[in-house]
Amino acid sequence: MSNVRIGMVGYKFMGKAHSNAYRAVPMFFPDALKPEPKVICGRDPQAVEKARAQFGWESAVTDWRDLVSRDDIDLIDINAPSDAHKEIALAAAANGKHIFCEKPLALNLKDSKEMLESAEKAGIKHMVGFNYRFAPAVQLAKKLISEGRIGKIYHYRAWFLQDWIIDEQFPLVWRLQKDIAGSGSHGDLGAHCIDLARYLIGEFKEVIGMSETFVKQRPLPSEMTGLTAKGNKDAPLGDVTVDDATLFMTRFESGALGSFEATRFAAGHRCTNAFEINGSKGSIKFDFERLNELQVYFTGDDEDVQGFRRVLVTDAPHAYMDAWWPAGHTIGYEHTFTHEIHEFMKAIEEDRQPVPNFVDGVKCQEILEAVDRSIEERRWVAIKELQEE
Amino acid sequence: MSNVRIGMVGYKFMGKAHSNAYRAVPMFFPDALKPEPKVICGRDPQAVEKARAQFGWESAVTDWRDLVSRDDIDLIDINAPSDAHKEIALAAAANGKHIFCEKPLALNLKDSKEMLESAEKAGIKHMVGFNYRFAPAVQLAKKLISEGRIGKIYHYRAWFLQDWIIDEQFPLVWRLQKDIAGSGSHGDLGAHCIDLARYLIGEFKEVIGMSETFVKQRPLPSEMTGLTAKGNKDAPLGDVTVDDATLFMTRFESGALGSFEATRFAAGHRCTNAFEINGSKGSIKFDFERLNELQVYFTGDDEDVQGFRRVLVTDAPHAYMDAWWPAGHTIGYEHTFTHEIHEFMKAIEEDRQPVPNFVDGVKCQEILEAVDRSIEERRWVAIKELQEE
Amino acid sequence: MSNVRIGMVGYKFMGKAHSNAYRAVPMFFPDALKPEPKVICGRDPQAVEKARAQFGWESAVTDWRDLVSRDDIDLIDINAPSDAHKEIALAAAANGKHIFCEKPLALNLKDSKEMLESAEKAGIKHMVGFNYRFAPAVQLAKKLISEGRIGKIYHYRAWFLQDWIIDEQFPLVWRLQKDIAGSGSHGDLGAHCIDLARYLIGEFKEVIGMSETFVKQRPLPSEMTGLTAKGNKDAPLGDVTVDDATLFMTRFESGALGSFEATRFAAGHRCTNAFEINGSKGSIKFDFERLNELQVYFTGDDEDVQGFRRVLVTDAPHAYMDAWWPAGHTIGYEHTFTHEIHEFMKAIEEDRQPVPNFVDGVKCQEILEAVDRSIEERRWVAIKELQEE
Amino acid sequence: MSNVRIGMVGYKFMGKAHSNAYRAVPMFFPDALKPEPKVICGRDPQAVEKARAQFGWESAVTDWRDLVSRDDIDLIDINAPSDAHKEIALAAAANGKHIFCEKPLALNLKDSKEMLESAEKAGIKHMVGFNYRFAPAVQLAKKLISEGRIGKIYHYRAWFLQDWIIDEQFPLVWRLQKDIAGSGSHGDLGAHCIDLARYLIGEFKEVIGMSETFVKQRPLPSEMTGLTAKGNKDAPLGDVTVDDATLFMTRFESGALGSFEATRFAAGHRCTNAFEINGSKGSIKFDFERLNELQVYFTGDDEDVQGFRRVLVTDAPHAYMDAWWPAGHTIGYEHTFTHEIHEFMKAIEEDRQPVPNFVDGVKCQEILEAVDRSIEERRWVAIKELQEE
Repeated sequence: MSNVRIGMVGYKFMGKAHSNAYRAVPMFFPDALKPEPKVICGRDPQAVEKARAQFGWESAVTDWRDLVSRDDIDLIDINAPSDAHKEIALAAAANGKHIFCEKPLALNLKDSKEMLESAEKAGIKHMVGFNYRFAPAVQLAKKLISEGRIGKIYHYRAWFLQDWIIDEQFPLVWRLQKDIAGSGSHGDLGAHCIDLARYLIGEFKEVIGMSETFVKQRPLPSEMTGLTAKGNKDAPLGDVTVDDATLFMTRFESGALGSFEATRFAAGHRCTNAFEINGSKGSIKFDFERLNELQVYFTGDDEDVQGFRRVLVTDAPHAYMDAWWPAGHTIGYEHTFTHEIHEFMKAIEEDRQPVPNFVDGVKCQEILEAVDRSIEERRWVAIKELQEE
Repeated sequence: MSNVRIGMVGYKFMGKAHSNAYRAVPMFFPDALKPEPKVICGRDPQAVEKARAQFGWESAVTDWRDLVSRDDIDLIDINAPSDAHKEIALAAAANGKHIFCEKPLALNLKDSKEMLESAEKAGIKHMVGFNYRFAPAVQLAKKLISEGRIGKIYHYRAWFLQDWIIDEQFPLVWRLQKDIAGSGSHGDLGAHCIDLARYLIGEFKEVIGMSETFVKQRPLPSEMTGLTAKGNKDAPLGDVTVDDATLFMTRFESGALGSFEATRFAAGHRCTNAFEINGSKGSIKFDFERLNELQVYFTGDDEDVQGFRRVLVTDAPHAYMDAWWPAGHTIGYEHTFTHEIHEFMKAIEEDRQPVPNFVDGVKCQEILEAVDRSIEERRWVAIKELQEE
Repeated sequence: MSNVRIGMVGYKFMGKAHSNAYRAVPMFFPDALKPEPKVICGRDPQAVEKARAQFGWESAVTDWRDLVSRDDIDLIDINAPSDAHKEIALAAAANGKHIFCEKPLALNLKDSKEMLESAEKAGIKHMVGFNYRFAPAVQLAKKLISEGRIGKIYHYRAWFLQDWIIDEQFPLVWRLQKDIAGSGSHGDLGAHCIDLARYLIGEFKEVIGMSETFVKQRPLPSEMTGLTAKGNKDAPLGDVTVDDATLFMTRFESGALGSFEATRFAAGHRCTNAFEINGSKGSIKFDFERLNELQVYFTGDDEDVQGFRRVLVTDAPHAYMDAWWPAGHTIGYEHTFTHEIHEFMKAIEEDRQPVPNFVDGVKCQEILEAVDRSIEERRWVAIKELQEE
Repeated sequence: MSNVRIGMVGYKFMGKAHSNAYRAVPMFFPDALKPEPKVICGRDPQAVEKARAQFGWESAVTDWRDLVSRDDIDLIDINAPSDAHKEIALAAAANGKHIFCEKPLALNLKDSKEMLESAEKAGIKHMVGFNYRFAPAVQLAKKLISEGRIGKIYHYRAWFLQDWIIDEQFPLVWRLQKDIAGSGSHGDLGAHCIDLARYLIGEFKEVIGMSETFVKQRPLPSEMTGLTAKGNKDAPLGDVTVDDATLFMTRFESGALGSFEATRFAAGHRCTNAFEINGSKGSIKFDFERLNELQVYFTGDDEDVQGFRRVLVTDAPHAYMDAWWPAGHTIGYEHTFTHEIHEFMKAIEEDRQPVPNFVDGVKCQEILEAVDRSIEERRWVAIKELQEE
């Protein structure tokens, strides 16, 4: 079987993470189809050429329109800013290319649905970048729940806490602008929490949320980069048009109760993507800052030694870990992308849709928008409302 | 100055905790007025006599009406089940006795207000048993916030997670019956979270909640005790009439966002009374299961050594700790009551109201009921609504 | 059965801890004989009278010789500085009084043996204050090992880390003077580690140690107290005559390997009395700063969920805990003394020796001195050497 | 400047880790010379060809003698079993190739010295694979100590705890055979601890150790791999000729006291490479299982908020981290090798010796052998003894 030839749009934070994954899959998962990093695409010719050289792509182009129609490309990887996703994806699908698209799929539910429809019509394989599913600890959580070892689920709590914009002088980067980013912490961080909850315990029934923009104006940035930017105290101010924090409560279809919080104002939390699940037979806790660990509790343990176990998920029975190092030798953030790309390669090989795909992207967007509506209208919103519109 | 002579109604879990505190205050806080455990009161003559002997009270009576009017009693301690609080408190106030009342003050807001009014009219000293305020770690949190070391507060998160009724066969004890207990996890556990939040960062503006009773029927108990009871599989079933879990979101008057959760269905959590506070200059984390620790983070720390500090709050500068043992020698749950009673003794000596008092009890009840209303009516409820009724 | 009437020599840190225990036993362990705090003894009349009033003793005396011969005293509690232990104990035994003696039993092995012999000759009950045995977590460790759930023991590691004299200006209190204290960290802290190891996994075979006095001179104190003292930069300096830190390795009779460390120079450790045990079927970790927790690992756990469990030892099945509070409600340092005194009361009632008793005090001293000799002679020393002398 | 062309001998666990590092350096550290993975070498033609394809090497050979003399190779990477290191290294040096050699440098001190001498004579660059130095947390520890922020060092404690051979049926792999591996836990794990201690606080003065082989015979393996092997209960038994565990104490040249332990019999510890350092101004704790964290304590912190800080070493100021991902996004075990190779590339570019190099390999071996001698002769051994032989 032949290699999967990749064309990638975007070369910043996500572009680097994806490039590394394309490089790593053949070394650590030699059983799968081999991704071949062919063409990298970005608007700035010098910057994209530098990225090409550094990340090991064969060639670079500056217009994605040239890329999506090339015969020597099988898969388009979209990690440009969110407002560009839809147009690229529609064109890629129209050209019969498989698509790996970073989350959020699009700026809104309507666009997301359009992307899904075009992908389905084109019969291509499509995937959305919910990489946290691919942490071995999350896989273990999924396994325990699926096998009934946690029992009936009563509670799901999720937090994605960061603090990178807590300084009021941090500049107005694109992630703080609604027209480019779609939303703030809600779409950037909350989307991951929502996807993990759907993956682990199932669909949401209704939601009610609240949100806040604590710092309403910030200095305009002189120079933009992925997640950091040089502040300038004398720079003119611009309006922050996205949420700094969004919280919501939910009732799941199963009857479980959920609470979710995404914020960029939690001092001391660099990247606390965490959840806790309580069921009738046990509980599970995860914190991405300790990626290689899962905390697990079983009500059935002997009564004198009941307690949360700190499971170091680096043993051979843990997902993906026999591909890496011996027990106790940890992996990092970037490995979630390697596992994700591996899933895409296997799906192509087996001629099936990878998971998570655009369906998951749309469903996540439904929940995000239901929360937005609940905030605006100050009421509970059923997910069904949005599905039926 | 003379001793404060105590008459106590109730002798189960809380009665034992209070008795211990009356005994400990003179030994560890000899500067304050000395409480004198005179009379203990309970309906069952044999049980109360046993408690009297064990807990070291001078005499026992079976009718609280006899107790509240005695001349040799200065202070009535009410830790009977919640439905009895009001009647006893009104009688005690009418007789000019100081009152220490366990939380919740009463079964509902109306009764709580009546208790406060009668106490104010009688000019007595009154206190409500929000003992968690008196953990040294909570005192440190209060100090850090008050001194501005955490900055402007953005987020408050609170959980009170327990698992003592997770077994579906656990019997229908009085704490699961609305007519006696008033409410379930919300009033029992959530009340503590609400009080701590008010104490630490101020008043609530509006709330919206959700709740659930996961196990709707349970075996009737053959024998009741404080928190445990023998289950009986063949016993007839009765309806659980309180909430197993209640969650709510809030906006504080200050603009901070809050989320609260109380549940008795969190497997592995015996008594996780926890909170986290995020401010512009730092963060604070507390978990009652690690009572002697406070996690503190400062944004102003040197940039290469920023991280949550695990502060063992057993040093001399920490509240109350010079009264106990050398640094590093921990205290336990019961000490919060000793500190609480110490505060009451000092307030009497200094002729001022102790804190927290019935005002705090009423305000907590306002929030509890606002949450209840928000659940019933599925909408945001302003605290002001209840205050103005 | 009648009460056990106590006469206590000493009223500082340990005197306070013991007083509290005598007071607490009847309330929390009403099944046992009741200790009756009769007479407290100390050299300074004003100070001892203040302690008497605060700690609730009936009367105070200034000469222990008056105390040990009184007819109305059944048990002599010795918690005066170490150099006074022997003389008091011999006199108490000669008068047929039971003895509760703080550790170290005496300044040296010879004196310890003399104390044991006199106690055995007098036929009294004797106990030595190794209070850490009485932490519920330590009891659980003992239970797990005894029941074979940890398997054959390979490793024992122990540390007692403190930092209270890390400031070079901290004054030369009695605990830093060999003629009063006997030794420094070794006898004060290491003794506890040795006793726990003997209790948990058995006898030592041979040892080799090293020690150091990092700060060799300190200001003479103006005023002495238990563990703190006011420093005075202009005060004349005196020689520190005890070890600041002592480490040693051991081979147990069972073949297990051990390493031990006691130091007062471990910045950040207020009272880290910790151990770890590794066996063929599992491991155990304990840290006194988290007194209510035991970390336990079992090799037999399902292979995908192996990990150290954090057991909160506050459930009813855990030792002593049904006497205190509901699950999840923690206890503190002082409770170890209450459990210890309870054991003594039960032993008297059942007419047996309490455990640990002077035999354990002597055996601990043997090991302490074997380590001292190994340091002096720079060689491995067999415990048998000292036993046969 | 041209690329550095690599020839690598070995293709198992370490070969895979090194291959990944050669691949990662150009992507994440594009400033440095680029390593070029040219030729991989192994005795089994099929296995080495499979490794070549998987790990991305240009060609494969089966005899290292062919490799060391090739003109198109600049650097020989030696990660074959320990007994092969010396011969290959001498030949590589003789051919003027730079050498990257896995630890332990050789089976004994004599051979190590010979390797160092030949490398120095040849004027090549040489490095030894003490990869743990290159964890960002270790780099931070080094920085804090170097800048005096921990003060004068009093204590160093190190443990390398594993449990991969705790099952008595685990087979007799090469790492358990003295003639191939040189030693057991001591040389494999203890060597890392020794190197970190030397790196962080300086040279050892004298040592005394103890060791044990708990399981003295094991089934002969049917098939060998890196760290795992299929056991076979019916297989004939062979003698384990290395130590299962080795402990030792040390006095450093600086006066600090040290204790070290390496074992493969610590149930529940997959890869606990941990140390703690106590100084006059603070303390440091590290555990490799939480690679991205360093615990730091400062005595100078405000007295009410003193505590160990959990520093997540993923911020831009932390070593190497600006090359990877945004703050809070963790790295794993393999990254230590990438940093290590980067150091080697920079050293070649700057025409200086990389650190750690063969000098460090020799010094580590001196200490390992001093410990061995102290065990055999049951006495303290000065490092100088071995240096002067």
